[in-house]
Amino acid sequence: MAKKTFEDMLLEETKDIYDAEKRLTKALPKMAKAATTEELREAIEDHLEETKGQVARLEKIFKLLEKPARGKKCAAMEGLVEEGSELIKEKKDLDSAVFDAALIAAAQKVEHYEIATYGTLATWAEMLGLEEVSELFEESLAEEKAADDKLTSLAAEINVMAQASEE
Amino acid sequence: MAKKTFEDMLLEETKDIYDAEKRLTKALPKMAKAATTEELREAIEDHLEETKGQVARLEKIFKLLEKPARGKKCAAMEGLVEEGSELIKEKKDLDSAVFDAALIAAAQKVEHYEIATYGTLATWAEMLGLEEVSELFEESLAEEKAADDKLTSLAAEINVMAQASEE
Repeated sequence: MAKKTFEDMLLEETKDIYDAEKRLTKALPKMAKAATTEELREAIEDHLEETKGQVARLEKIFKLLEKPARGKKCAAMEGLVEEGSELIKEKKDLDSAVFDAALIAAAQKVEHYEIATYGTLATWAEMLGLEEVSELFEESLAEEKAADDKLTSLAAEINVMAQASEE
Repeated sequence: MAKKTFEDMLLEETKDIYDAEKRLTKALPKMAKAATTEELREAIEDHLEETKGQVARLEKIFKLLEKPARGKKCAAMEGLVEEGSELIKEKKDLDSAVFDAALIAAAQKVEHYEIATYGTLATWAEMLGLEEVSELFEESLAEEKAADDKLTSLAAEINVMAQASEE
């Protein structure tokens, strides 16, 4: 059997993030519903729409690679989503601003997983001369970075409320 | 029962990263051993030493918080480490530069998990007026960012070799 090449690995990694994004489209509505501040709920809902767009973008990439769009279980995203679900179960025991602060923390971990993955994929695709594929990965990378920045700004406000829970 | 406060949540999150770092001290030696280029092996070994220092730093933080140093299973890091192990199992089927490129990708996902977590923790500690704790988290955050940058530089060289596997 021939050894797997760089392009095979690009395909593997694309399957991983495809599975991860599809898991997220199921997890984000629960996170949005659990958010106690309107602004955070809206931010998560906006990112859900973006995530659906990223799934469609990945399907376009599979087409460009001439491969069927298929996921491969992403254990890391499974773990990240599990952490979010556990937090939601704990909601009743938490001050509401503290819960929102922790929800943002969970969401930022998810964003960083995606930033690392899309960063790698955009670079690999470029190295392989797959210009159009690389640009599509870059678009998703830019969205993830913007979503992470948005959460950081929101956290600045919510942390002040969470801090008040100490007093 | 009183609702959990911001400081309770800081402690929870500290337990999560403590578990994550301890898992990493077990996973990194296997990753270093599997690396095919000397430079990558050394980079992972250096980061193993840093990780051990981060574990010790967390123990100092638990002491400052006047709590016992205890981990809480980090499902996300469990998943990230699992992805690394699966990759190592596949090594024989991969071109060696392609394997190293994928190993760097796996390591960068780990770095990003830690960047997100330490970023949150440093901010929370600062909000809570825990200056010394916040500075310790900032030190680990800076180390993780530097480790991620180092991997990006290494990837630039290794990707060129991986690309050659296509020809």
